[in-house]
Amino acid sequence: MRTLPGIPNLHSHAFQRAMAGMAERQGNPEDSFWTWRETMYRMAERFDPDTLHAVASQLYVEMLEAGYTSVCEFHYLHHAPGGRRYEDPAAMSRALLRAAADTGIRITLLPVLYMSGGFDGRPLGERQQRFGHGVDDFLALIQALRAEQGERVRIGCALHSLRAVPQAAMDAVVSALPRDMPVHIHIAEQVGEVQDCLALRNARPVEWLLDNAEVDARWTLVHATHLEPAETRGVARSGATVALCPTTEANLGDGLFPMRDYLAAGGAYGIGSDSHISVSPVEELRWLEYGQRLATGRRNIVAGADSPSVGETLLQAVCDSRRNATGFDGEGDTLTLDMHAPQLVGANDTDLVDRWIFSGNRNLVDTVHVAGEQLVSGGIHRDRDTIAARYREAIKKLL
Amino acid sequence: MRTLPGIPNLHSHAFQRAMAGMAERQGNPEDSFWTWRETMYRMAERFDPDTLHAVASQLYVEMLEAGYTSVCEFHYLHHAPGGRRYEDPAAMSRALLRAAADTGIRITLLPVLYMSGGFDGRPLGERQQRFGHGVDDFLALIQALRAEQGERVRIGCALHSLRAVPQAAMDAVVSALPRDMPVHIHIAEQVGEVQDCLALRNARPVEWLLDNAEVDARWTLVHATHLEPAETRGVARSGATVALCPTTEANLGDGLFPMRDYLAAGGAYGIGSDSHISVSPVEELRWLEYGQRLATGRRNIVAGADSPSVGETLLQAVCDSRRNATGFDGEGDTLTLDMHAPQLVGANDTDLVDRWIFSGNRNLVDTVHVAGEQLVSGGIHRDRDTIAARYREAIKKLL
Repeated sequence: MRTLPGIPNLHSHAFQRAMAGMAERQGNPEDSFWTWRETMYRMAERFDPDTLHAVASQLYVEMLEAGYTSVCEFHYLHHAPGGRRYEDPAAMSRALLRAAADTGIRITLLPVLYMSGGFDGRPLGERQQRFGHGVDDFLALIQALRAEQGERVRIGCALHSLRAVPQAAMDAVVSALPRDMPVHIHIAEQVGEVQDCLALRNARPVEWLLDNAEVDARWTLVHATHLEPAETRGVARSGATVALCPTTEANLGDGLFPMRDYLAAGGAYGIGSDSHISVSPVEELRWLEYGQRLATGRRNIVAGADSPSVGETLLQAVCDSRRNATGFDGEGDTLTLDMHAPQLVGANDTDLVDRWIFSGNRNLVDTVHVAGEQLVSGGIHRDRDTIAARYREAIKKLL
Repeated sequence: MRTLPGIPNLHSHAFQRAMAGMAERQGNPEDSFWTWRETMYRMAERFDPDTLHAVASQLYVEMLEAGYTSVCEFHYLHHAPGGRRYEDPAAMSRALLRAAADTGIRITLLPVLYMSGGFDGRPLGERQQRFGHGVDDFLALIQALRAEQGERVRIGCALHSLRAVPQAAMDAVVSALPRDMPVHIHIAEQVGEVQDCLALRNARPVEWLLDNAEVDARWTLVHATHLEPAETRGVARSGATVALCPTTEANLGDGLFPMRDYLAAGGAYGIGSDSHISVSPVEELRWLEYGQRLATGRRNIVAGADSPSVGETLLQAVCDSRRNATGFDGEGDTLTLDMHAPQLVGANDTDLVDRWIFSGNRNLVDTVHVAGEQLVSGGIHRDRDTIAARYREAIKKLL
């Protein structure tokens, strides 16, 4: 029986797990990313470190059971309601680290710098007060958290987006970071964001970033949906990773990444579950490929003529994204599949991954190890029930 | 706890369940629907009534466990290899009826008329010999099968496609059928099919059908992907049902149905799992909506301003398609969800369906009844293990 590598999850906002499936009912024919964001802001207001810990623990159990062995936590819910600092300014960050430690998943914690409400530099709105930092207290937060690094913990840095981080702040933060620290940024997810950037910086977001930052292998560009061909080639050449989040990008109506051109230029990519309306590498990878098929009218888009298997190509690519995007090498992160499942009858080592990703709906993950430690057996995390019970209590407080 | 209606599955080719996940590895940059069809033909060659019964039984168990309570079986694998007739010409049809009876699912068996290999009337190719009929033996097959109708069995009729059924045969068959019998047809799935129809019949497929057949509420048009606006409105006005198969249409790179215009014109639709690379109303409905979001850059496409919930709108529509497309009224076909699942914590009757369809990956179906009889409890069909064991043996013969 073949052992598969654990999958790195490159993009997560853990608290959003609590609202999965609850933002599909606005009865608004103009519903869009921006109306969804209002729902998300209302949910964000209610969290404290204990509820965040409970929700993140449940999420990480679900990730491990689905075959994710590490998570990049793009974390912007830093402060108490209204922006009041917690006694420990890292309290919310530590809640996430505790959830990772309790469940055993590896975490790349990416505290998010969030400074303004738009490209014009307007101050944060009332609901964004919990997200805000200046450059100095942001760097102090990162410095404090670096003491927590270990076998399963990396501290990176995230810039929320070009609209939320002025150029001078971006320069100051990026130049102050250790050279090996991953830097993640949301970019070019929405057409409105591209238009604002063009209007105020006279360039498209990715175009501007490539011109104004030393984008290299330590950078992960999240979404990067709306690209002109020169931007697509520029990202591929930079060595950066693109974090694609197919289920969230579809749920939010973002659009489709120009995969074929990006692959032709040799670009690197991984996947993330982002808003957690789905927590499954199978659904992300399946629909990453399917979205491209719908756009092109062809099959087998990610695998070129020299690859025998779409599934193997996808799996290899997302695992290759691990080191640069997460800071981990993934040693001892493995999973096995349930070879007794009907989807896998007669499967052999060469068609196993295609069958896993492209057939059926039952979760086929049987065992999961992180850093050599077994956390999931028979598809069930060792603390599934305890953590689910705590999650239930937290959700009752949040709803 | 709210009881939900069972979901009708409007389009199934049961034998294709055996190749789910095995057609993703051609390493062919020109891979398309047509190369996929070659793989499918190779698999079709190997079936006999016993293996078809075993594979269909496994499929129907999976359907029931996922919440489908009836299936329209678009059945064209009629004869022995090379086109030799079985002693009982209905042997393969009866294998499907037996699988339905063994599992308890309702079946609308749609024997398929398949006469030629293209719009130019060319004879069937070697691999299509198992599918073929003349008008008379086809009507005799339908007549023989009608004796099997009962509480959970309806016999309808399918025309494979315009390319496989000459006009005179279509007219002869449709006029000979009882007026209340459902008629299904594959139509406008592929651009190549639209081009051939334009070249040889001087009209697009749906345009031609609307002009040359009395398309009304007894008709189900499967896929109908490639439509001009006048065709979209024409189908909606006809009272026909469109059977959308989002996972298969994505897997095959077919394209996206013009949902927004069709709904504006009051069109009826249901869903089908078709090639069975997915067997879940959740994945079909989720991605039916998501595909439209990706195409439009908006959210909440199927629910208008007067509907509070995308999920409720989808569920209502696909259940409304039941009577015309399947011939059943669905009385006693119900399901309940596992209210202890983490996705449903705090759910109430109004957000239950949104949460079911738009969050998570674990199958939430707890109990399923068909015609008042309980077939699934705790998410597991009463004969899951026996039927899976028989499926394993069949697959070993087929691979």
